[in-house]
Amino acid sequence: MQDMLDKIHEECGVFGIYDNDDMGVVESAYMALYALQHRGQESCGIAVNDDGVISSYRDLGLVSDVFKQETLERLGNGKMALGHCLYGTAESNKRENAQPMPFRHVKGQMAIANNGSILNALDLREKLEMQGAIFHSTSDAELIAHMITRERLTSKSIEDAICNAMDKLYGVYSLLVMSPRKLIGVRDPLGLRPLSIGKYKDSYVLASETSAIDSVGAHFLRDVKPGEIVIIDENGLRSIEKHCGQKSHLCVFEFVYNARPDSVIEGTSVHLARQKMGEFLAKDHPVEADLVMGVPDSGNDAALGYANASGIPYGTGLLKNKYIGRTFILNTQKQRENAVRIKLNAIADAVRGKRIVLVDDSIVRGTTSMRIVKMLREAGAREVHMRIASPPFRYPCYFGTDIDSPERLIANNMTIEEIGHKIGVDTLGFLSLEDIVNVAEKSDCEFCTGCFSGVYPLNVENAGKVSKFDRKFSENID
Amino acid sequence: MQDMLDKIHEECGVFGIYDNDDMGVVESAYMALYALQHRGQESCGIAVNDDGVISSYRDLGLVSDVFKQETLERLGNGKMALGHCLYGTAESNKRENAQPMPFRHVKGQMAIANNGSILNALDLREKLEMQGAIFHSTSDAELIAHMITRERLTSKSIEDAICNAMDKLYGVYSLLVMSPRKLIGVRDPLGLRPLSIGKYKDSYVLASETSAIDSVGAHFLRDVKPGEIVIIDENGLRSIEKHCGQKSHLCVFEFVYNARPDSVIEGTSVHLARQKMGEFLAKDHPVEADLVMGVPDSGNDAALGYANASGIPYGTGLLKNKYIGRTFILNTQKQRENAVRIKLNAIADAVRGKRIVLVDDSIVRGTTSMRIVKMLREAGAREVHMRIASPPFRYPCYFGTDIDSPERLIANNMTIEEIGHKIGVDTLGFLSLEDIVNVAEKSDCEFCTGCFSGVYPLNVENAGKVSKFDRKFSENID
Amino acid sequence: MQDMLDKIHEECGVFGIYDNDDMGVVESAYMALYALQHRGQESCGIAVNDDGVISSYRDLGLVSDVFKQETLERLGNGKMALGHCLYGTAESNKRENAQPMPFRHVKGQMAIANNGSILNALDLREKLEMQGAIFHSTSDAELIAHMITRERLTSKSIEDAICNAMDKLYGVYSLLVMSPRKLIGVRDPLGLRPLSIGKYKDSYVLASETSAIDSVGAHFLRDVKPGEIVIIDENGLRSIEKHCGQKSHLCVFEFVYNARPDSVIEGTSVHLARQKMGEFLAKDHPVEADLVMGVPDSGNDAALGYANASGIPYGTGLLKNKYIGRTFILNTQKQRENAVRIKLNAIADAVRGKRIVLVDDSIVRGTTSMRIVKMLREAGAREVHMRIASPPFRYPCYFGTDIDSPERLIANNMTIEEIGHKIGVDTLGFLSLEDIVNVAEKSDCEFCTGCFSGVYPLNVENAGKVSKFDRKFSENID
Amino acid sequence: MQDMLDKIHEECGVFGIYDNDDMGVVESAYMALYALQHRGQESCGIAVNDDGVISSYRDLGLVSDVFKQETLERLGNGKMALGHCLYGTAESNKRENAQPMPFRHVKGQMAIANNGSILNALDLREKLEMQGAIFHSTSDAELIAHMITRERLTSKSIEDAICNAMDKLYGVYSLLVMSPRKLIGVRDPLGLRPLSIGKYKDSYVLASETSAIDSVGAHFLRDVKPGEIVIIDENGLRSIEKHCGQKSHLCVFEFVYNARPDSVIEGTSVHLARQKMGEFLAKDHPVEADLVMGVPDSGNDAALGYANASGIPYGTGLLKNKYIGRTFILNTQKQRENAVRIKLNAIADAVRGKRIVLVDDSIVRGTTSMRIVKMLREAGAREVHMRIASPPFRYPCYFGTDIDSPERLIANNMTIEEIGHKIGVDTLGFLSLEDIVNVAEKSDCEFCTGCFSGVYPLNVENAGKVSKFDRKFSENID
Repeated sequence: MQDMLDKIHEECGVFGIYDNDDMGVVESAYMALYALQHRGQESCGIAVNDDGVISSYRDLGLVSDVFKQETLERLGNGKMALGHCLYGTAESNKRENAQPMPFRHVKGQMAIANNGSILNALDLREKLEMQGAIFHSTSDAELIAHMITRERLTSKSIEDAICNAMDKLYGVYSLLVMSPRKLIGVRDPLGLRPLSIGKYKDSYVLASETSAIDSVGAHFLRDVKPGEIVIIDENGLRSIEKHCGQKSHLCVFEFVYNARPDSVIEGTSVHLARQKMGEFLAKDHPVEADLVMGVPDSGNDAALGYANASGIPYGTGLLKNKYIGRTFILNTQKQRENAVRIKLNAIADAVRGKRIVLVDDSIVRGTTSMRIVKMLREAGAREVHMRIASPPFRYPCYFGTDIDSPERLIANNMTIEEIGHKIGVDTLGFLSLEDIVNVAEKSDCEFCTGCFSGVYPLNVENAGKVSKFDRKFSENID
Repeated sequence: MQDMLDKIHEECGVFGIYDNDDMGVVESAYMALYALQHRGQESCGIAVNDDGVISSYRDLGLVSDVFKQETLERLGNGKMALGHCLYGTAESNKRENAQPMPFRHVKGQMAIANNGSILNALDLREKLEMQGAIFHSTSDAELIAHMITRERLTSKSIEDAICNAMDKLYGVYSLLVMSPRKLIGVRDPLGLRPLSIGKYKDSYVLASETSAIDSVGAHFLRDVKPGEIVIIDENGLRSIEKHCGQKSHLCVFEFVYNARPDSVIEGTSVHLARQKMGEFLAKDHPVEADLVMGVPDSGNDAALGYANASGIPYGTGLLKNKYIGRTFILNTQKQRENAVRIKLNAIADAVRGKRIVLVDDSIVRGTTSMRIVKMLREAGAREVHMRIASPPFRYPCYFGTDIDSPERLIANNMTIEEIGHKIGVDTLGFLSLEDIVNVAEKSDCEFCTGCFSGVYPLNVENAGKVSKFDRKFSENID
Repeated sequence: MQDMLDKIHEECGVFGIYDNDDMGVVESAYMALYALQHRGQESCGIAVNDDGVISSYRDLGLVSDVFKQETLERLGNGKMALGHCLYGTAESNKRENAQPMPFRHVKGQMAIANNGSILNALDLREKLEMQGAIFHSTSDAELIAHMITRERLTSKSIEDAICNAMDKLYGVYSLLVMSPRKLIGVRDPLGLRPLSIGKYKDSYVLASETSAIDSVGAHFLRDVKPGEIVIIDENGLRSIEKHCGQKSHLCVFEFVYNARPDSVIEGTSVHLARQKMGEFLAKDHPVEADLVMGVPDSGNDAALGYANASGIPYGTGLLKNKYIGRTFILNTQKQRENAVRIKLNAIADAVRGKRIVLVDDSIVRGTTSMRIVKMLREAGAREVHMRIASPPFRYPCYFGTDIDSPERLIANNMTIEEIGHKIGVDTLGFLSLEDIVNVAEKSDCEFCTGCFSGVYPLNVENAGKVSKFDRKFSENID
Repeated sequence: MQDMLDKIHEECGVFGIYDNDDMGVVESAYMALYALQHRGQESCGIAVNDDGVISSYRDLGLVSDVFKQETLERLGNGKMALGHCLYGTAESNKRENAQPMPFRHVKGQMAIANNGSILNALDLREKLEMQGAIFHSTSDAELIAHMITRERLTSKSIEDAICNAMDKLYGVYSLLVMSPRKLIGVRDPLGLRPLSIGKYKDSYVLASETSAIDSVGAHFLRDVKPGEIVIIDENGLRSIEKHCGQKSHLCVFEFVYNARPDSVIEGTSVHLARQKMGEFLAKDHPVEADLVMGVPDSGNDAALGYANASGIPYGTGLLKNKYIGRTFILNTQKQRENAVRIKLNAIADAVRGKRIVLVDDSIVRGTTSMRIVKMLREAGAREVHMRIASPPFRYPCYFGTDIDSPERLIANNMTIEEIGHKIGVDTLGFLSLEDIVNVAEKSDCEFCTGCFSGVYPLNVENAGKVSKFDRKFSENID
């Protein structure tokens, strides 16, 4: 079990642009990466396509660290670009795993950016290695590049090659491919990760979230369908639907936490979906109180929903320090105890003497919740009723979201009552599994709730196996 | 007039600690600077006092840029420390103007950190120069260091020297002085800038805002009184009240914008004061609408107050990108037009078809407001009613807040009706001068409203004059 | 012709260690890279093998820029390491071309470091691409990795795979391969580039030059033979000599310029070889003069030889600024004119009134020589007789040395008399082709003199062809 | 004694330019700093004077680290500039001690750059402090700024103020002052440190060494006389000679080590002076040998002189790694042992079987010499006869050269015979005190030989006293 969890989980944001209107592909990719930064903060990159010659830059760090004026300028310009930001486990945070991944093959230069997790990756890698393939990274993106390249040898076009490669790739992917003349977007047949199409005059963009489409001044056109291959070239946009047919099984955690509130996924506003979660919580876990407040920023929308549905006033009782970011570096025991305080502070006059409904998006180990509750009580809160806008985490995610190891998940070790006692609240309520799949009423999609239910839309038996070559000496090698 | 505005305006945060409990003076100053970062983002510094030997580091940049692990470690440790962050005009943003400013004089090593503006600075500098003084910076802090040092020659203690220097310094200051054995806090006789005292066991801290006191785990004790000199040494805390007697004339802009919502100034919660502003706005400028929302983050509290008082639901309709920070660098015309969009994005599903009350803290030139309103209309807002939680800016501030030059202030060039038309709102309402001085009912303080009213609590006739030596060749120099 | 010259020329230094004596593989590689820095200053890297798990770091820049304490520590430790430094053309100076190049294949992790130039690279790449291979760089090292990996599928050991790959690789290579359990060194059948073996107790090192062997405290054992494969593992050192049999055709420019004077190649001290060049020059181009001096540093050894052979006193007349390094950045016209002056300065009192023999290693375009001569004359030199310790450059090098394009070589456009007139000397003499191959009398090796003679020991007909995919749009790609 | 040695020793390079010919003052200062870098490698700076408004930048680090394109551009342009590089003790290496030091006083903006050591610094500082002065650094430059500024109050010009200040400053100084309209150079009455004047068309430069004059394309005009004040302004150059009259007592260590060989000081070429030292050594300490070689780079010139005088052939037997610079960072015991080997390597074929005369400029502790000798013997040298181009170090320098503490000087603990035995040479010879003062025959100057003889041209009784405030708690301070 633990072995499987060591697999590289990647939460990512992808962006692609085919520019017919002088939007500026580098500037657009750069702005879009800022709009997608919340999806991956370990590494990022941009690849630019100038009539088939691809320039790229990628490195560990935030967009603001990696891309300075000079680096952006050196990327030149072109008709297409890809952008990518990535969150990976400590182990996978190496420069060579950063994307977009540029490479050359028999038909020219290409670049790939992916958000997802290929479940049969190890099998595919081993088969390729048996044919002499070499790998420079441990990223699925490189594996996909190999798979497409092999198919390209016998396919009449890059899109056909991708279509054929999809027959062999089993797993989750929202994938962008930039060939010399085409920008191609692909979503796996179950559509676990989002991928949307935007348009500005005669130009197209593809992005993990609509917030990135907004950021470049384009408007949302439609989502890429589960299984669809979207091809954008000088003739405009067309698609291959050979792998389509199934409903989207969107990762419900996109609504809970991953996506930005201003994004719209599968037709549903993330902001409204979160308000809805709060409404469900108000219905299922009502309580008499004076104030509803969220743990900023991710709990605010559901708190608003709870307030509206319950009639209890909404307010602000915690302030988040916006300068801390990823820069906090002191690492003494004493400072760790202070860590929550430097990131969050109670607004004492807002909570003193009040009975508070505190809404958060989820609970993992419970330690942060415990400290926040303590902070509110010290600031004079009379009662604290915690409401969580998702069901308890109990199972691993094999599809790219990095949840803690099962044995550290507080919900695997305690009953809800025990959890409430541990974190020091008066009452505690979670969103039910029944409710969470109803937050996007208008969408005609289903949801993957694996991390909450243990029921997965894909066979995860072989997921996450790692190569023996990632360990020290094994047999038969020289 | 313009000449005066060229004076260096400094908005700052100051912090000092006298540590009797092994809190760690460097760690504390570092955390406090994060909690005060909103008060000054151009430069920052820390000075540590180890039994009379002062080590310090200061540079241009954010706390997270200037202080890395290694720099903090090299500061060593001691019983006292000062911290400072500064916002200055482009001209004054030089390393030598950063604080705390360390120096040596006849009685040993010292350091000074100040938030304020000395109105008779030029006169005092010229007098000192006539006696042979040299200056390494254009900062008031250096001037104050000279003034105290001169007085120290004939005073029996550092606190007496400060007390005597106050007779000659005319203006605004919340000042911290660290002598070999003492930590001293001073507030000008009208108390225009805040300065609070915190306590943790046997240790004391002094800070511009209570949020910084919270950040180091101490609790708020009381504000330094206008004109008070607070001395902390091995005998604890005592004070000199020779310059006390007048009520605080606190800068009301501290409540409008400068201070953090979780701070408490002169007994009033900033958060609640801002809610109050919203309540006043609801009373004075009512409107029929579907949703009240703030321009994040600074308009949110007043929006909440407006919503509560008006009964119109509160909601979120704009999302702020938390990764942009100060790192956005593209500077093409095209990008500038996009600038608001990359920082803020409308949540279309939250505003579509709605009549919106949009609350912001203030309007300077009006261009940002114009773009936000346009963004909301493009997202489908039916009506936009703007409410501003302060009166119109019409006058310069001579006391440290950097308001734009009078001729660029939209309120100096247009009627309120014209402004509303320019920025494209259906209705526009400002907080009245009468109301703004009532946001802190419980406080027994008065307010400086100079930037709104043109009425100042200090004589500003000579304020802001600059030395002829800051210009190219003048007469009589070789 | 020009097309061919656009090929990536790589001058490199390689280093490998198999450590049985706790020498410290990272420290050793780091020190060796300093000793090899003169062979490549554009990028560098180190790869460490810890029981089959390879950690590596490589980047653009000098060793002192790329490797800081923290980076070295993060490499961990192990029993083997490779080091590499590279000089490439502007075009090839990309991070992905830096070496050692780590990768994974069917038998585990590997790393490769190479000095050379594969002449049939394009053919081999195209064949591999036709089989589905993808490339992440334009480096021969990656191509070699592919070739070895393919052979490994049908070979019983890594050394056999290398041996088989050598049948297909046509060109120049001094190659190091680090497999999970073995350190392997290979030299092409003509041995155009040097590669030496060192020993320290039970440990072995392989390096481009003996100076690197000295730098880690080991002693020189012997050169790798042309065509030899040297395998070092837990059983010690053994070799495969299937491709041996031909005499070394060492690049003579290694003696002229590339190698460090303290290195010994093919049994000949570089320092003594350069003195010998000076002796030949004295014999062939005698002149009456007062002082012999070198253009520092590369002309000094030959100047010493000239002085000894001619009886004219040796001296120093030019001082080289040792702080300029690669850091000189001003790029105005005016500064370029000053460029020689800031790097070199005449010692006027040493040259005034003297008849000078000025010895340099080679002349490319002649502009630098012209400025140096002018500087000496301005400092009062009465006569300047230039002696060049190599024949005139007239032909391209296809084997890794980056000589200027033929049409810019002064010797292709002028007679020796005209050159002398252009650079302003009284007399000018070059080393003859006959002499240069006699600088290493004791060696039983031949020399490649291609750049001087146009006669190459390998068929260069197809050398340097570049892929059509390195240019913008060509036919048939999508 | 030890207390005195803790005083800040500063070896520095200074440069000033008054540009009437569009030479570019920033570019010139930048180039000159490269030419003076050997005189101080801890910090550096440039100050530019644009019609009385001074811009400056200074920081810790080498010229190549501190000044990048952007920093140079931000300095703007003007008619005058100062440049400075500094070597200080670990303690004084703080950014605030870097020069040129800019400041403002009653007559405008100024900047100061100094090379020297004020012996009565503490007395002067204490007197100033008693009058209320404050200090931001521990640098003599700041003290001098105060002294001049005080005098300026009652003097009719800046040059008169400097002249009057000289009455009170006791010690060593080669000082540059840049006032709004004048560039002024000053040398102390004994002229212990060099200062030369250069000219290019109608422009003037002042520099510590003539190599810096050469570097900007100007020609040497003359040295500033001991005690002379040279004033350059729109009327050209004039001087005040009130403090003139004594012969120069130049620090003889300038010839031994400090200065660049291509510089000319007091009419004598440093290069020729060093050759002369070698000639004296050959005369006083003859030996039968096969090869004379220097420890590079500083021993080479004297080695040449020894070779010429003795008739023994000159050669190269040690190679210095030019990439190590100041960047070597590994700090393990093992690496320290290797430290000499990575910096220097023996050219075995040049020394094997030979009887060698090894010439170095000086011996401090002897450990480096010991390692070099060992390295030569391991490379096969038959005999090693060491010759040192200076007398043994036995006394402290109070005038700016940082010699080790007396108890660590090998010559204070051993006889010359014992030293020879310790470092492992066959014979050892030092230059005599008699000879060293004769290396500059043509000069009409005397020499300070304090570090060798203990006889100083100035009273050093009070030299080097440090303020009690530099230590932890002393009496009477608060």
